[in-house]
Order: sequence, then C-alpha cells, then structure tokens
Amino acid sequence: MDQRVSLITLGVADLERARAFYEALGWSTHDAPEADVVFYQAVGMIVALWSREELAKDSGVEDRGGWGGVTLAYNVGAPAEVDAVIEEARAAGAVIPRTGAATFWGGYSGVFIDPDGHPWEVAHNPFWTLHEDGSVHRPLPPARS
Amino acid sequence: MDQRVSLITLGVADLERARAFYEALGWSTHDAPEADVVFYQAVGMIVALWSREELAKDSGVEDRGGWGGVTLAYNVGAPAEVDAVIEEARAAGAVIPRTGAATFWGGYSGVFIDPDGHPWEVAHNPFWTLHEDGSVHRPLPPARS
Repeated sequence: MDQRVSLITLGVADLERARAFYEALGWSTHDAPEADVVFYQAVGMIVALWSREELAKDSGVEDRGGWGGVTLAYNVGAPAEVDAVIEEARAAGAVIPRTGAATFWGGYSGVFIDPDGHPWEVAHNPFWTLHEDGSVHRPLPPARS
Repeated sequence: MDQRVSLITLGVADLERARAFYEALGWSTHDAPEADVVFYQAVGMIVALWSREELAKDSGVEDRGGWGGVTLAYNVGAPAEVDAVIEEARAAGAVIPRTGAATFWGGYSGVFIDPDGHPWEVAHNPFWTLHEDGSVHRPLPPARS
C-alpha cells in the first residue's frame, strides 16, 4: 500500500447545509445541486460530502455519533492567514473552539468545527514547506555524519 | 480557504501498535521510534498518528469514542489490486467488514478498519484518473453545448 490518501469523505447530516458551508469558504464543485454526494477536487486528492448514515453503512462501522478521532488540517503561509481563515469559517457558521495562537510545537494555529462536528486545524507550520500548488512537504532529516 | 487538505491526523490508543500496522502495509517515516507523533509524507500532504486523547483536546472536541463520520479511501488501478490491499491489511491485523466487490457507483471496492477503528475504503474507480505519482483527479464534466 503506497503512502497516500485518494479521498476523504466527511459524513454529514444535512448535505445542503454542509455544501453551503464549504462553498461559503470558497470551495467549488461541478456536482449538480441535487447530487446526493458532492466531490471537491483538492491537491492530488478529493474531499467528498455524503450522508453520514450512508457512509457508516458503506464503511462497515457502527455510528454512535460524535467525533471519531480524525482531525484535518489546512496549512497556510503565515500566522495572519490562520486568523483570516478562522474568521472566514466563523462567518460561514463554524464553531471556533480555539482562535489562532502559538502552539507547543512552535507553530501558530486555530481550530474551526464544521456544521457536522468535523474539526479543522488551520495552521502555520514554519518547519514544513507549503508549495505554490498547495502541496505540503516535510523536510527530510539532516543526514547523519 | 483553498480547496485542499494539508494533514490528516488519526487519533490512536496505542501509537506503537498503530505505527506497526501502517508500517506493515509498507509506510515509512523518518520519525524516531520514541516519537510521540508520527508523520507520513503522502502525495502533497501528510498523514499523522497521534494520541487520540491529545488530539481531542487539541481539536477542542469531546470524545465519546467510536467512529465519527470520516472515512478515507485509497484508490488503485484495478480490481485485483483492491483485493491485494485488503488481504495485505487483513494480514497486518485489520478488520475487514467487506471484501472487494462491485459497487453501486460502478467501481469495485472493499473496506479495512485499522486497529483504532479508522475505516479505509480501497477502491478502483474507473471514472477517476490515478496518476503515476499517486495523485487522483476527477475529470471535468463535458462542456454544455
């Protein structure tokens, strides 16, 4: 199994509401307004929104509700951009459990939670490289002498 | 907010077990064996394993356990590769709620669940393009006349 992820599907209770939220943040798709699953082309991978109930069945898992141990992150080029995205998410209806602040790992981040309870950390990580095309790379460790 | 994901963090109960599982599938990292968070460079983004308890705190969410409405997918080039990855995951200790089979959407997929309950769909989607570098793209719809 190669080291990659092709698709992240976020289960949602109300697809219209979820779609409106991500589109208020600037995301766009070619899917019709009546589509029952919506796909957003990201950088080399895809993010989908689908009925959480259908996703649970399709994934062979039981759903007792709530958060399940997965957090996404969106990296930006500077602390001020973290603050801007957090405010954009708040305006779109996100809950903000923490606004931008310095982190224990030496970066700067805040978190927003989408209308279906999916948290996104918005982060500036000065140790990682955010390329022009939106891809993110971690530097290799220095060679041992 | 651009249409991209920089990092997916999977919360785990036992980092050593989780790391052993993904490394049995062929993933590798430069992080030291004693690291308390492990990062895997994927295609233009990163996958991390971290204490689920710490991740919940960091994400500002309450954790009642179980699945939380997020499923990842790993796309491959042919149905037989789906079967091969599912068997590789089973051998590494995954639970297999469904083995490879034709899907309602015209592809072929199976699902494995990692030791922390995170499901991965392994899919062959004949409508999407899986590039040599591992990136996945959805074709644009035909232009309207």
